Amino acid sequence: MEKSALQMARAAYQPKLPKALQGAVKVKEGAATQSVGDQEEIKKLFPNTYGMPIVEFEPATEANNTKMNVGIILSGGQAPGGHNVITGLFDQIKKLNPENRLFGFILGPGGLVDHNYMELTADIIDEYRNTGGFDMIGSGRTKLEKVDQFEKGLEIIRELNIKAIVIIGGDDSNTNACVLAEYYAAKNYGVQVIGCPKTIDGDLKNDQIETSFGFDTACKTYSELIGNIERDCNSARKYWHFIKVMGRSASHIALECALQTQPNICLVSEEIEQKGMSLDDIVTYIANAVCQRAADGNNFGTVIIPEGVIEFIPAIKKLIAQLNDVLAMPEAKELDRHESIDFVKAHLTDENLAVFNSLPTGVARQLALDRDPHGNVQVSLIETEKLLSTMVAQKLEKMKKEGKYSGKFSAQHHFFGYEGRCAAPSNFDADYCYALGTSAAQLIANGKTGYMAIVKNTTAPAEQWIAGGVPITMMMNMEKRAGEMKPVIRKALVELDGAPFKTFAAQRDRWARETAYVYPGPIQYWGPTEVCDQPTRTLALEQGK
Amino acid sequence: MEKSALQMARAAYQPKLPKALQGAVKVKEGAATQSVGDQEEIKKLFPNTYGMPIVEFEPATEANNTKMNVGIILSGGQAPGGHNVITGLFDQIKKLNPENRLFGFILGPGGLVDHNYMELTADIIDEYRNTGGFDMIGSGRTKLEKVDQFEKGLEIIRELNIKAIVIIGGDDSNTNACVLAEYYAAKNYGVQVIGCPKTIDGDLKNDQIETSFGFDTACKTYSELIGNIERDCNSARKYWHFIKVMGRSASHIALECALQTQPNICLVSEEIEQKGMSLDDIVTYIANAVCQRAADGNNFGTVIIPEGVIEFIPAIKKLIAQLNDVLAMPEAKELDRHESIDFVKAHLTDENLAVFNSLPTGVARQLALDRDPHGNVQVSLIETEKLLSTMVAQKLEKMKKEGKYSGKFSAQHHFFGYEGRCAAPSNFDADYCYALGTSAAQLIANGKTGYMAIVKNTTAPAEQWIAGGVPITMMMNMEKRAGEMKPVIRKALVELDGAPFKTFAAQRDRWARETAYVYPGPIQYWGPTEVCDQPTRTLALEQGK
Repeated sequence: MEKSALQMARAAYQPKLPKALQGAVKVKEGAATQSVGDQEEIKKLFPNTYGMPIVEFEPATEANNTKMNVGIILSGGQAPGGHNVITGLFDQIKKLNPENRLFGFILGPGGLVDHNYMELTADIIDEYRNTGGFDMIGSGRTKLEKVDQFEKGLEIIRELNIKAIVIIGGDDSNTNACVLAEYYAAKNYGVQVIGCPKTIDGDLKNDQIETSFGFDTACKTYSELIGNIERDCNSARKYWHFIKVMGRSASHIALECALQTQPNICLVSEEIEQKGMSLDDIVTYIANAVCQRAADGNNFGTVIIPEGVIEFIPAIKKLIAQLNDVLAMPEAKELDRHESIDFVKAHLTDENLAVFNSLPTGVARQLALDRDPHGNVQVSLIETEKLLSTMVAQKLEKMKKEGKYSGKFSAQHHFFGYEGRCAAPSNFDADYCYALGTSAAQLIANGKTGYMAIVKNTTAPAEQWIAGGVPITMMMNMEKRAGEMKPVIRKALVELDGAPFKTFAAQRDRWARETAYVYPGPIQYWGPTEVCDQPTRTLALEQGK
Repeated sequence: MEKSALQMARAAYQPKLPKALQGAVKVKEGAATQSVGDQEEIKKLFPNTYGMPIVEFEPATEANNTKMNVGIILSGGQAPGGHNVITGLFDQIKKLNPENRLFGFILGPGGLVDHNYMELTADIIDEYRNTGGFDMIGSGRTKLEKVDQFEKGLEIIRELNIKAIVIIGGDDSNTNACVLAEYYAAKNYGVQVIGCPKTIDGDLKNDQIETSFGFDTACKTYSELIGNIERDCNSARKYWHFIKVMGRSASHIALECALQTQPNICLVSEEIEQKGMSLDDIVTYIANAVCQRAADGNNFGTVIIPEGVIEFIPAIKKLIAQLNDVLAMPEAKELDRHESIDFVKAHLTDENLAVFNSLPTGVARQLALDRDPHGNVQVSLIETEKLLSTMVAQKLEKMKKEGKYSGKFSAQHHFFGYEGRCAAPSNFDADYCYALGTSAAQLIANGKTGYMAIVKNTTAPAEQWIAGGVPITMMMNMEKRAGEMKPVIRKALVELDGAPFKTFAAQRDRWARETAYVYPGPIQYWGPTEVCDQPTRTLALEQGK
């Protein structure tokens, strides 16, 4: 592997650890826990892993020299810092006992089932310290949820004499980690399962998990780009930039980027849903801001849009639900493209038809024609940034005819997703992930299963961070998935009464009118601590800083 | 202006200057020069500014305390470092004589004509040290080429007692700077004009100008993003990423990004033109690489595409030329969209019709229907990255039917332009621009006009850089522009026998087959010198390093 100068220099970075994890460790157990909802059902589904205490690590005088082999799995989309969870885990199990071995399962949970693995030795580990990506062992989206998968996995676990599996993933993957932990515990197999909280979207977050890893680096990378675009926007003074960022179900990324860069407009899906806004409401909101800025002579601006916003508009949600039903009708399958659209229009309710007709032709056509392998409308194919700018342009045209607007409107479009998912982790993510991996090793050494590794107090210097573990069942409730009630970890959406949103909401009118852009620049690994070592604004505000 | 932590810390950076510019300066003059082509014509057009010597600055014992006011103009698209040219110029004229004043003309050359200006005082200057963007005074695209503009400009020059105008711009703007210098010299107005070489595309480059500013920072920013995408690509192992980068007429950016990131494929427009490749040749080339990687089990990859590639394909160039003619026919104006396409098809030569029919429907439709205000085909609207991936998918489908390919192909698309034009300048661009501004001040103080400020030996440490000026006429020849022969600075395209291209060409077959990605990471301002202070690969290779 040919390396860049940054990678080579960065390999030498020694992530900072919480004080409690720097030497020998003992466990302090708290009170018994219960799930956030549906306690009875969750308890019944997880008799062996329900109700366990939260644990915290404390410095100890005597080292625990547990002999143990560990398996590690990366699950789902990439997030910066994944490799550091693995290096933290590796360093800690070797420190516990140099004979301990770490096995990586290849390309995600499927690697466990298919017995596709590699031993992660020191020379491999050293190649990946403080790097982005999941390419050390690859990731995958196979769901571990069936008994035959668990049993197949057990074969290789036995063969490699593995004591515990660590699964790095989002809400679904951690739920499955807990199902697996429960299964192995129920069977008395003596195999532990530990989860690690990863998601760029930032929606795996609760009282115990302050932030999920990768969010910090990804948001800073997107904010670098948004800031660069804002500066261009403010220099050329002739375009409105519509910038879509990752975040299908939660708008944490959009909100964090807005707090870092102060754009003219940022949409927040959760607010749109809560207020029951229509597509026209959103378009009007943007068009009015364009109009107001034009009146000040500013025919330019920036708009941040969360990827999933369209599905949060109640009227569009209803339309999509009915489209799925209409397109599933047997008669619909025989029609050519032209007939299909007529068929759809003939079967929509008046309300949905009105929404359908309000969409630009290309988007309506796409909704009526393109379906995914399950026959569903492909909402993710809609280029929301272009949809919105097109509709804003139409609205402004109308306002111009009415004499309400006399500016110029020209739009540019951007979408940032892949640009940040594999960025080299910021100091925060490098430290945080390394501490999570170290915690995972200690949870294993202390015999825990069905726990997620956690690190708290993360706006303080790393030295003062608090490491430990939380029972995964504690974060669960029952939700409907594909028609069935399932135990799941509750997704953390943007809270409209939380400090990050309120801070944004208190300033957005000024940002819309003025040009209050902030240009964060690229992530720095060396240099002043106020540049290199700050947590996200979201995290700081949530912790009252 | 609210500032980011990086901006605040970065404001304190003191750009490094060449030794000769650190104290008092004297001028060393070389031999008389001549233009790179059409000497007689250029000499006739520029009797007062032709044939002047190249000058180099040397340390002097006695300071030149010239009393002078200076005007500065930013022309054309943004490039990182523009503000540092201005701060370098400001610091140097104040050092020469604290009474000297600097005036910035607002929103480009139009500011001179319209008398729209602001005085740049120390407090304003300090806000913009080492920052990206052109927002200090804004930029514009008004061309200074008419006598009444020159005379109008003179009024405000006299009013502000300005001795010289500095114009920061690309090839066209510097040509116009020289026309202005010649005019003021011919009229004996005693007003000097100095140019500064700026272009992100990197096509303002020759024996005297080693690199134009902004190229370094922009390429590093794009390479950061391309590296992040490559790492994602190599972690998820399921997409081909088609990444378009800036560069309408030259592929320097694409080539530099390829040298930094080692993608599977990089197209170089100049090579495509030289080899007379067809669109099908390019598609086949990419499809074959996809096929070969699929045979190794690698259904993923990255392709870098220069923005202007489509216009370098000889067959497409011919088609566009004929389309422009056909669409200009009076009968064409009366037709509706449907008739228009039939009309176009009926009037194309067989050869052009075949090319037209080979294009995906949407692209063909766009070429036949969408015209710019001059009635020309809008090539820039074509999303080349999507055009190519669509055609590659079709080609692979055909290969699959013929049993030659059995992989999976799924594409993602990106376009990077605005993301890098206003990035905070790298140490290289911060130093280089500051030195250019300092040189410009010294050229003025030494009575020069019609010169471009230059800095050479730029792969050595800044201390050893050589600063001076070159007569703009030296870089000119006569070229046809809009039907007329005009004096212009010759654009520097990628040289196929130059070291950067040859280095790329020698490795690209391996890069196509293997996964040899390099992940450069974000620009660093603090940290090890091998990370923070390297010039571009293009510059290093051109200088044999």
